[in-house]
Amino acid sequence: MCYNQLMPRYKATIAYDGTDFAGFQRQENAPRTVQGVLEDVLYRLNSNMPVSVQGAGRTDAGVHALEQVVHFDMLEAREPEKLRFALDTQSPDDLAILAVEPVTDDWHARYNKHTKTYEYRLNNSPIRSPFTVHTEAWFRYPLDLQLLTSACELLVGKHDFAGFMASGSQVENTIRTLSEARVHTENETFIFTFTGNGFLYKQVRNMVGTLIKIGNGKWPVTRISEILETKNRTLAGPTAAPEGLYLKAIHYEEGKFTPDDYA
Amino acid sequence: MCYNQLMPRYKATIAYDGTDFAGFQRQENAPRTVQGVLEDVLYRLNSNMPVSVQGAGRTDAGVHALEQVVHFDMLEAREPEKLRFALDTQSPDDLAILAVEPVTDDWHARYNKHTKTYEYRLNNSPIRSPFTVHTEAWFRYPLDLQLLTSACELLVGKHDFAGFMASGSQVENTIRTLSEARVHTENETFIFTFTGNGFLYKQVRNMVGTLIKIGNGKWPVTRISEILETKNRTLAGPTAAPEGLYLKAIHYEEGKFTPDDYA
Repeated sequence: MCYNQLMPRYKATIAYDGTDFAGFQRQENAPRTVQGVLEDVLYRLNSNMPVSVQGAGRTDAGVHALEQVVHFDMLEAREPEKLRFALDTQSPDDLAILAVEPVTDDWHARYNKHTKTYEYRLNNSPIRSPFTVHTEAWFRYPLDLQLLTSACELLVGKHDFAGFMASGSQVENTIRTLSEARVHTENETFIFTFTGNGFLYKQVRNMVGTLIKIGNGKWPVTRISEILETKNRTLAGPTAAPEGLYLKAIHYEEGKFTPDDYA
Repeated sequence: MCYNQLMPRYKATIAYDGTDFAGFQRQENAPRTVQGVLEDVLYRLNSNMPVSVQGAGRTDAGVHALEQVVHFDMLEAREPEKLRFALDTQSPDDLAILAVEPVTDDWHARYNKHTKTYEYRLNNSPIRSPFTVHTEAWFRYPLDLQLLTSACELLVGKHDFAGFMASGSQVENTIRTLSEARVHTENETFIFTFTGNGFLYKQVRNMVGTLIKIGNGKWPVTRISEILETKNRTLAGPTAAPEGLYLKAIHYEEGKFTPDDYA
């Protein structure tokens, strides 16, 4: 086999229930990650040669994906729908392969410029449903939709989100742009939607943890501005539970990310 | 303590995700049943005295309940909402206690006259969703809503449903009345609804297994009439998967069941 020649690259759109995964990224001692499971299936479909999977986002343990995007290189070209079907059929039930398409060999799920949309589902019914234990977070105390809407509006725009980043994270530039931050209800569930050109580690769950305090009337709406201005992590709420979080979509644009995108 | 005096009886409406239960009914060697879990929780709430739980329906392993009804006797009277909250809080996440109310000491979840409504959720999308693996059955081939509707109509009424009963069942009278048998779609899921004064063992799943063959065009709509007339089990389809089935509601009426109800 000649390893110098370019290998065909594929982009795949996948969905997973994160309940039984130790997150997306393959880890030394983690028994089961999305990347690990995908690479194991691809290995068998690639004449038992290792395949490296790169994902657009690294979801944490328990976090779900409605449309995560990955790319990988195969030794030989495949008919995309046949490859999708083979991958989907050989993947476990909590991982679905929604689409596969060929891409150019410089296409990269993470470095090609994109925005991500996350959704956070927070069940507010007085009795927790047995059917959404792993797929919605639960908060049984009152939440005010108007307060939550006002607080979300303060999150939109280009801000230094350092105050919403998990402590211990090592990122130099903590400026990100949120183009969308909104909340609506479906039955007894509050659904938060956030779209941005990048998210800091645990940023969405820390924003939601803060929003819950505001929606419950414990903190004023202006707490959002205070956290954005002071970058003080201790002013933010607790990290909201992982089971409510969904990577909902990746929207690709022309070109690669550049440092200017975060300036 | 005086065991001769009447003990206060309670009716409870409960919901459960049947995935991790070996069915409703406590069994000798089954590690985890709904009845068993409920009786264990009630034991602790009843001064460590055993409590016997009677359910309206005995759902099988993997089958869910949106509104199952049970009754039980406690040593001492309780404020119903406090009892509901204590039961719900001490029950595992996949079992919820929706309502508790006091009933007279001759009220019986199973023998008081009632009809039951079952729902069967059958996902028909080409790719199985990772989020409904345990909460919807899946059939990826074409299903015709009009054929299914016509077939459902043939099931309505008083019939001998012996042809849809699981083989090996020991029931003398196999005549039941279905007051409702219909199908509708929500997104890519076909939802079947059946209401009747009683159901034979695995009757709903055997009816759905037959309906799938008809909706897929493999069998004619008239197969339903043929099975009802001949009572021939071998003409019915395979038993549909348990994860699609929900005990949706119990509708109580005046009085107890009598043999006349099945005549």
